[in-house]
Amino acid sequence: MAKEKKVEQITDMEVDFAQWYTDVCKKAELIDYSSIKGMFIYRPYGYAIWESIQRQLDAEFKKTGAENVYMPMLIPESLLQKEKDHVEGFAPECAWVTYGGSEKLEERYCIRPTSETLFCEHFRNVIQSHRDLPKMYNQWCSVLRWEKTSRPFLRHREFLWQEGHTMHATAEEAMAETEQMLKVYADFCENVLAMPVTKGKKTDKEKFNGAEATYTIECMMHDRKALQAGTSHFFGDGFARAFDITFASKENQRAYPFQTSWGVSTRLIGGIIMTHGDNNGLVLPPKVAPIQVVVIPVAQHKEGVLEACRAVVERLKKAGIRVKIDESEQSPGWKFAEYEMKGVPLRLELGPKDIEKNQCVFARRDNGEKSFVSLDEIEAVAAELLEKVHQGMFEKAKKNLTDHTYDAETLEEAKRLQQENGGFIRTMWCGDEACEIKMKEEAGMSSRCMPFGELPIGNKCAVCGKDADKVIYWGVAY
Amino acid sequence: MAKEKKVEQITDMEVDFAQWYTDVCKKAELIDYSSIKGMFIYRPYGYAIWESIQRQLDAEFKKTGAENVYMPMLIPESLLQKEKDHVEGFAPECAWVTYGGSEKLEERYCIRPTSETLFCEHFRNVIQSHRDLPKMYNQWCSVLRWEKTSRPFLRHREFLWQEGHTMHATAEEAMAETEQMLKVYADFCENVLAMPVTKGKKTDKEKFNGAEATYTIECMMHDRKALQAGTSHFFGDGFARAFDITFASKENQRAYPFQTSWGVSTRLIGGIIMTHGDNNGLVLPPKVAPIQVVVIPVAQHKEGVLEACRAVVERLKKAGIRVKIDESEQSPGWKFAEYEMKGVPLRLELGPKDIEKNQCVFARRDNGEKSFVSLDEIEAVAAELLEKVHQGMFEKAKKNLTDHTYDAETLEEAKRLQQENGGFIRTMWCGDEACEIKMKEEAGMSSRCMPFGELPIGNKCAVCGKDADKVIYWGVAY
Repeated sequence: MAKEKKVEQITDMEVDFAQWYTDVCKKAELIDYSSIKGMFIYRPYGYAIWESIQRQLDAEFKKTGAENVYMPMLIPESLLQKEKDHVEGFAPECAWVTYGGSEKLEERYCIRPTSETLFCEHFRNVIQSHRDLPKMYNQWCSVLRWEKTSRPFLRHREFLWQEGHTMHATAEEAMAETEQMLKVYADFCENVLAMPVTKGKKTDKEKFNGAEATYTIECMMHDRKALQAGTSHFFGDGFARAFDITFASKENQRAYPFQTSWGVSTRLIGGIIMTHGDNNGLVLPPKVAPIQVVVIPVAQHKEGVLEACRAVVERLKKAGIRVKIDESEQSPGWKFAEYEMKGVPLRLELGPKDIEKNQCVFARRDNGEKSFVSLDEIEAVAAELLEKVHQGMFEKAKKNLTDHTYDAETLEEAKRLQQENGGFIRTMWCGDEACEIKMKEEAGMSSRCMPFGELPIGNKCAVCGKDADKVIYWGVAY
Repeated sequence: MAKEKKVEQITDMEVDFAQWYTDVCKKAELIDYSSIKGMFIYRPYGYAIWESIQRQLDAEFKKTGAENVYMPMLIPESLLQKEKDHVEGFAPECAWVTYGGSEKLEERYCIRPTSETLFCEHFRNVIQSHRDLPKMYNQWCSVLRWEKTSRPFLRHREFLWQEGHTMHATAEEAMAETEQMLKVYADFCENVLAMPVTKGKKTDKEKFNGAEATYTIECMMHDRKALQAGTSHFFGDGFARAFDITFASKENQRAYPFQTSWGVSTRLIGGIIMTHGDNNGLVLPPKVAPIQVVVIPVAQHKEGVLEACRAVVERLKKAGIRVKIDESEQSPGWKFAEYEMKGVPLRLELGPKDIEKNQCVFARRDNGEKSFVSLDEIEAVAAELLEKVHQGMFEKAKKNLTDHTYDAETLEEAKRLQQENGGFIRTMWCGDEACEIKMKEEAGMSSRCMPFGELPIGNKCAVCGKDADKVIYWGVAY
């Protein structure tokens, strides 16, 4: 059977989740390897998901007042070194340019691993007065981090992302921006990608190099590991002081502005795959699926079938739905399996008998449900089903998150729960980095975040037993 | 007067065109300098023009069947060297990465100056059968060329562009694609950017490194110099052979596919500035202007003025027009000059007297024409005036091109015409590179293109006097 022929190429996720993941990335034609380790090729189907994410997130950014810019990709070493914590974190994974043509450069330049330093250099030029604030900039670009290990979408040496960089007159405004952008990310993950998130603050150990505070959204993958899906940083005025960025306040005092940065990357696509995928392949959230409905003609050689299918395509297109028809000579069974693997949210089947009855079949990718639908209503039903697929995917993922979030009172309990179930383990934490390190060493879990607005478990640190007032999430992370 | 205060910062173009250009780039806040020579910062207003170009061109590319992808930014030296002509052209201006973190790389990598080699490496993986053809890919990215000199938008070490790369089963199909994409560029320049173009073929001396043929669109700037605004290349099967890319034909024969590439860059923004700008600053084509209509309240402290202006803004927004209101405390005169400098195509003035009469004033940026318009009709009139501004700009630029394109029969005549008038000089050419070099050395002009479908001037080469059947354009180029 054609279907089995195609699907057997994907390893079952229960057998080997990592291999299943790699298979999906390759077979669904999301990505290809290049000749440089860790540098991947985003193929049309994978890149189209990113374009969809970009388009929608960009609109949300602009609603908050952010403007897009583009900064150079190279950073002089002396510029990178201006903020001490920042350079310590990033210098070990920079790729360095030492020659321009045949000439050795006087100073070496790194390819941006992130662009705080470049933005600060520019902010110094364009911020003079309180009237110049806030500055809310964003750029879509790629960055380079010379990692030792790599996996498609999750860890690349070069990856695509956006980085927002903003400057504000007061710490309060900057903090509000940090929180606002975390909310933009969280809403986007839940409402567009159908990925439920846990919002919270990173510990000092896990925060961004040079930041005063890092906020994060953490998602749970199908294998119950954690994925950090987006971060928003509050810098205080640390970089402003290091780069000597000042403005004349309303009272005509020289003051340092307060800074944030925030980013998400193509890692989100890895999150989509591992949150929603199954043993038949990808399952794409309808709002970012490059193809939302695939039309499969049944007995397409029979008179009138292709014409009827094409008419359906035109109608769905007009209704603003991303639709594709597969008129190739493959069997319908092969096509069913192919577009299941590619995660297309809805399949529309249409054959001679359907045409006679003025109906078609819709099949949902997320749960396999089929329904007969009158041809008079396909636009409205397709839109409704796409919304249901989104809801179904979100609820399934939410259940995975809820079912596998556990409370523990001691390190031993936390360790046992993680070994038995995976998932997120909630405990109290005293705030001491030594306890955080001990949890990592003994239970193999890193801290994920200190969640916002959740009720406490108790009042003793699960590691040292001392008084504790912080709830913290632990997990095994990608 | 506020207006004069602002405008005096821009050098008159008749006094010093190069300084006028730099002034406009800086004062209109299109660009800023970074600490690395030749690497520029695209500021929000400049980047927004590029986003507008991207959005519209991308839609045109997709109509032709092209799909977007993203390739790595680094090219191993051994990969770059696979096509001899190509590497000879580009190696001297590559920036080289030699260290990853603290480790010296075994092989050095260049930051892509263009990506033919990367695409070919990938095509080798994904093209096996005639069913895999055509492959029509495009990517939006930045590239790096270590140039000695630089100017905003016209010559950057790093610049933003798009590069299309396609593979076809036959030479005819590839040639048709080369021509089709040149037409896409030409139509875009004329219909969207209001920049008339001359289409033609480059001489062998001026063609792209490694191409069999390069097609070009050449535009004439306000100073009558030439700007190469976009190119489309036909590669034959040269790269396919060098990279061993083959496919099984319908007859099941192993065959080499035929290749094209095509690109435009942020250089187009330089073209917009120098085609349309005047001594008051930028003049932006309405279809890419980040702000199409600026609303300036007159006597804004008077009751009802701001409210009326805001209502106008909402109505224009709803009509799909990009509109901005300036409610700052600057004088109307200052605001007039500011948005003139920024090239906003239409200004809408609204004050207490206008409100009484249920009217407003529209002022066109391209020719200064003012008209009184009933407030009941602002949406329709704004759309109509934007179209007229586009037409007016195109016709003015077209007149500049037509008035300053001259025919010459000898090198001496060509030289004299160029010295007296600038512009494009049309002559006959025998096809000998020696004549092309002589024209450059003696008249300071490079060949721009051999135009498509224009009538001949005569039958003797303007340089050597021998028989000639090619019409050729000469000019002084950016």
